[in-house]
Amino acid sequence: MDDDRLLLLKAVEIATEGIRNGGGPFGAVVAREGKIIAEAYNQVTLKNDPTAHAEIQAIRQAASFLKSYDLRECTLYSSCEPCPMCLGAIYWAGITKVVYASDRNDAASAGFSDNIIYSEIMLDPSDRKISFIRMAEKEGSKVFKRWNEFEEKTPY
Amino acid sequence: MDDDRLLLLKAVEIATEGIRNGGGPFGAVVAREGKIIAEAYNQVTLKNDPTAHAEIQAIRQAASFLKSYDLRECTLYSSCEPCPMCLGAIYWAGITKVVYASDRNDAASAGFSDNIIYSEIMLDPSDRKISFIRMAEKEGSKVFKRWNEFEEKTPY
Repeated sequence: MDDDRLLLLKAVEIATEGIRNGGGPFGAVVAREGKIIAEAYNQVTLKNDPTAHAEIQAIRQAASFLKSYDLRECTLYSSCEPCPMCLGAIYWAGITKVVYASDRNDAASAGFSDNIIYSEIMLDPSDRKISFIRMAEKEGSKVFKRWNEFEEKTPY
Repeated sequence: MDDDRLLLLKAVEIATEGIRNGGGPFGAVVAREGKIIAEAYNQVTLKNDPTAHAEIQAIRQAASFLKSYDLRECTLYSSCEPCPMCLGAIYWAGITKVVYASDRNDAASAGFSDNIIYSEIMLDPSDRKISFIRMAEKEGSKVFKRWNEFEEKTPY
């Protein structure tokens, strides 16, 4: 059995452990050079944290372990296709490889509405179910002007 | 000046504070009934946490304060249009109103690549720049079967 499959099965096992422990049915593992450096299951309801998806938790742990927000040498293994939130986190972390088992349609059959978020995200903000209101553009743009001019910044 | 504008200007002020304190140029506020219950600036580089966007931090704080992962009574004020990761978090938190100042194009001019993630997210996983590999579908589906049959679960 190759390493990818083995590490993915570990993520699936963690998802099952999550159910047993009162969490959500999703598990994730972050590995570097084939070694696990972080693992987590969904803890949204356990932690009262809507962002505590398995992937987000595993990414945060891996970054903390490596003392870096840049995880480009890591692979994420997830029991299910990452939702748009987690996908965004994967891009920001610079992860370049994701291995997963179930997909967004399987998640829907278990009551998780990734599909709605995928549809909404493609719409113009003003067309979404959530009310998006834009104002104070001038004040907002001053922030980026200051950022562009700030010489001691840590760009990323 | 109406409340929305005032609370948005607070988020903008926090973004500026973020720059001063070595964080990223983004600020967010979560309010309920016009009262601020959480505020944060981007701390990705400060915390070595790729998920520590202003909005994610503010949502986590608000949920912790309310002891609930359900923020449907809250409004999010953000100095900039939320990126796809934060947008996902907003949907999962059930927030129904977002007020923002700058947009994804302004963010691009300051070096933040929200636009790339928006384009990638719309593609089929197999067409993305990140390598997405699916396997172990059978093992993955067992997790959701177990979840669907688990009587003591906390659905959300």
